Amino acid sequence: MSFAAVDVIRVKRDGGVLSDEQIDWVVDAYTRGHVADEQMSSLAMAILLRGMTDAEIARWTAAMIASGERLDLSKVARPTVDKHSTGGVGDKITLPLTPLVAACGAAVPQLSGRGLGHTGGTLDKLESIPGWRAALSNEEFISQLRDVGAVICQAGEGLAPADRKLYALRDVTGTVEAIPLIASSIMSKKIAEGTGALVLDVKVGTGAFMKSVDDARELARQMVELGRAHGVDTVALLTDMNTPLGLAVGNAVEVQESLDVLAGGGPADVVELTLALAREMLSAAGLSDVDPADALHDGRAMDSWRAMIRAQGGDPDAPLPVANEIEQIRAERAGIVASVDALGIGLAAWRLGAGRARKEDPVSAAAGVVLHKRPGDRVAAGDVLYELRTDDPSRLPVARVDAASAVVVGDGPAPVHPLIIDRIG
Amino acid sequence: MSFAAVDVIRVKRDGGVLSDEQIDWVVDAYTRGHVADEQMSSLAMAILLRGMTDAEIARWTAAMIASGERLDLSKVARPTVDKHSTGGVGDKITLPLTPLVAACGAAVPQLSGRGLGHTGGTLDKLESIPGWRAALSNEEFISQLRDVGAVICQAGEGLAPADRKLYALRDVTGTVEAIPLIASSIMSKKIAEGTGALVLDVKVGTGAFMKSVDDARELARQMVELGRAHGVDTVALLTDMNTPLGLAVGNAVEVQESLDVLAGGGPADVVELTLALAREMLSAAGLSDVDPADALHDGRAMDSWRAMIRAQGGDPDAPLPVANEIEQIRAERAGIVASVDALGIGLAAWRLGAGRARKEDPVSAAAGVVLHKRPGDRVAAGDVLYELRTDDPSRLPVARVDAASAVVVGDGPAPVHPLIIDRIG
Repeated sequence: MSFAAVDVIRVKRDGGVLSDEQIDWVVDAYTRGHVADEQMSSLAMAILLRGMTDAEIARWTAAMIASGERLDLSKVARPTVDKHSTGGVGDKITLPLTPLVAACGAAVPQLSGRGLGHTGGTLDKLESIPGWRAALSNEEFISQLRDVGAVICQAGEGLAPADRKLYALRDVTGTVEAIPLIASSIMSKKIAEGTGALVLDVKVGTGAFMKSVDDARELARQMVELGRAHGVDTVALLTDMNTPLGLAVGNAVEVQESLDVLAGGGPADVVELTLALAREMLSAAGLSDVDPADALHDGRAMDSWRAMIRAQGGDPDAPLPVANEIEQIRAERAGIVASVDALGIGLAAWRLGAGRARKEDPVSAAAGVVLHKRPGDRVAAGDVLYELRTDDPSRLPVARVDAASAVVVGDGPAPVHPLIIDRIG
Repeated sequence: MSFAAVDVIRVKRDGGVLSDEQIDWVVDAYTRGHVADEQMSSLAMAILLRGMTDAEIARWTAAMIASGERLDLSKVARPTVDKHSTGGVGDKITLPLTPLVAACGAAVPQLSGRGLGHTGGTLDKLESIPGWRAALSNEEFISQLRDVGAVICQAGEGLAPADRKLYALRDVTGTVEAIPLIASSIMSKKIAEGTGALVLDVKVGTGAFMKSVDDARELARQMVELGRAHGVDTVALLTDMNTPLGLAVGNAVEVQESLDVLAGGGPADVVELTLALAREMLSAAGLSDVDPADALHDGRAMDSWRAMIRAQGGDPDAPLPVANEIEQIRAERAGIVASVDALGIGLAAWRLGAGRARKEDPVSAAAGVVLHKRPGDRVAAGDVLYELRTDDPSRLPVARVDAASAVVVGDGPAPVHPLIIDRIG
């Protein structure tokens, strides 16, 4: 069946419900180039402002999956379980989590992305390890999953090509924030990659896409529904992203912090979230009797990390890049750190070179922000609050402004944000 | 000042108000090709669903005018006044009205368009007159206005090029119906053409863009505001478009009906609306003591028409084209005509060849529908209700269906729709 694009747009514009046939047609025709970019962007804006029913979102996601291949992970003898975070500042959790869960007996097929804007990308972080490569063929991906149990790599070209085209369009047309399109974008890739179970980390706060708990809960609910409808056992945690996760924000500095966690140390919030997500993943994989804390302390998680990095050409013993310029910012007064704003710190790290302004830009491995204090910490005048790290000193002045407004020292106790807000599933 | 297109889109998407600088920038950058079609269509959908304040609409219109030239009609010794209709079925009013108002002492600079969809275009109608040409240079336009007082021609390339580009985009992206964009599109062209005063005929009903009186009133109010803000004395009539105007719907058949009106005859509704609009125009031109009815009856309006047609190469004495195939449809029963639906008759005329499906299609001069009965008329079984006219008999079967469902014969008195619903200004 064939439709006129304008008729499909009008239905959604006027608050109506798209039929299954209209959704199948428009996703397929857009992927093939028969529906123009300016038509799809107008439809995406109408979807953002009018919303979609659960049935529409399910069909849209199925159409995106059908635009490409769906991997078969049945040859991986272990239960497969993946994690996806909607993105935040200092969110390096995938790095310790993937080898940790693999060390506990599951296989983790982690297809990751690059950073855009102020949120970092897992692949950019791992590329600060000399020799490590992000691109694997489907065969390499499946055999590493079978042999090592842990893989973090970029998604192949064959998975949900409709999503790749649509995501690039949304990025330049102000339609990234459409909750139904976020849900279907994430879930089409995760379902196509073939994982048996999925744990979602939906971030909420200044440093996240979702600024309100209600929006985050709605996104989580839609994704959990979608996973289950496609036979993927899915749960979601809603977690706080008003403050950066851990102390390190950047690429190499986040790899270093991840190594600290894998060695049994690291900041308390990173350890807490890593273990909470690991327990959800192991439970979804039918391994709920395994305690992931043991694997962090007895070295099995670190062994799994080393095997995973080596399997993709990386040298786990090579020193990580260090920035040419490290500027320490000190407290002007004594007091208690009231807040460290995730968005401000994310922007500062981005301006220092850790992120990219356009997709084709390179990132600096060494650039970033390293916090010395977190909300609630007591400081004396002259104590180091944080460091700005960059290879390009001309980037410092603007980054200083973003970081300075993000870190507030006060007198009273800092407000407490619980890290894990809710669980949906 | 320069902006990122996405930031401008986001403001409107989230229900905010665009700044003057953002509007100037986005209209100019789109005209130059620095803002992409897919970005402008997403913005247009956000405008359609979120609306615009009066100040935003005024600035948007000013930016569209500033994208091209603004004509100076000060060399035309007479007061200038134009009319614009938002488009309907059988709406040939421009044809008798323009020479009539010129005969009464004003100059009428009528830049018109072609039909698209089921509504006819004034230029298409006039092109059924042998030799007549629609394209004039700015110099020809101004000198004919000075010498004859009446000009109907197509808008030059230099007037509001932003509007031409944006209109073509809206047509394929489901964003034609945005009231602020309709208002700014119409008014940017009318203000740029240099007229001193303007009378708007805003159509409402099944055969019009605006289906509800509230929407039509809002569009009229916005356009009147815009005209006044740019020094153009503007008033609007809201008029009924549930029933076609007059008896003829097509190209040559509407020219013939216009000649009947100019000769002092013609259908009552066409005469009523022509005189009402003429009185508004003459009043706006400072000529309210002139009665246009006199000029219809004493031949001055017809003389003005002949001079206008001749000035653009047309032969006012040449016979008009007649269709090869004329099919008469007769009443199956006696009764009273309850309704003649404008949309159904417009679609039938379009399918017979009077209109075009795509911009580049030709139209048939002779095709159309000629009504023999109007709502309220008493009919006997076997009386002719209407004629279908076409050069291509293969077009008849589908047109028959549209026309048949449009004309309803009942027993009771027909509901009465007043032709002129309201006056705004």
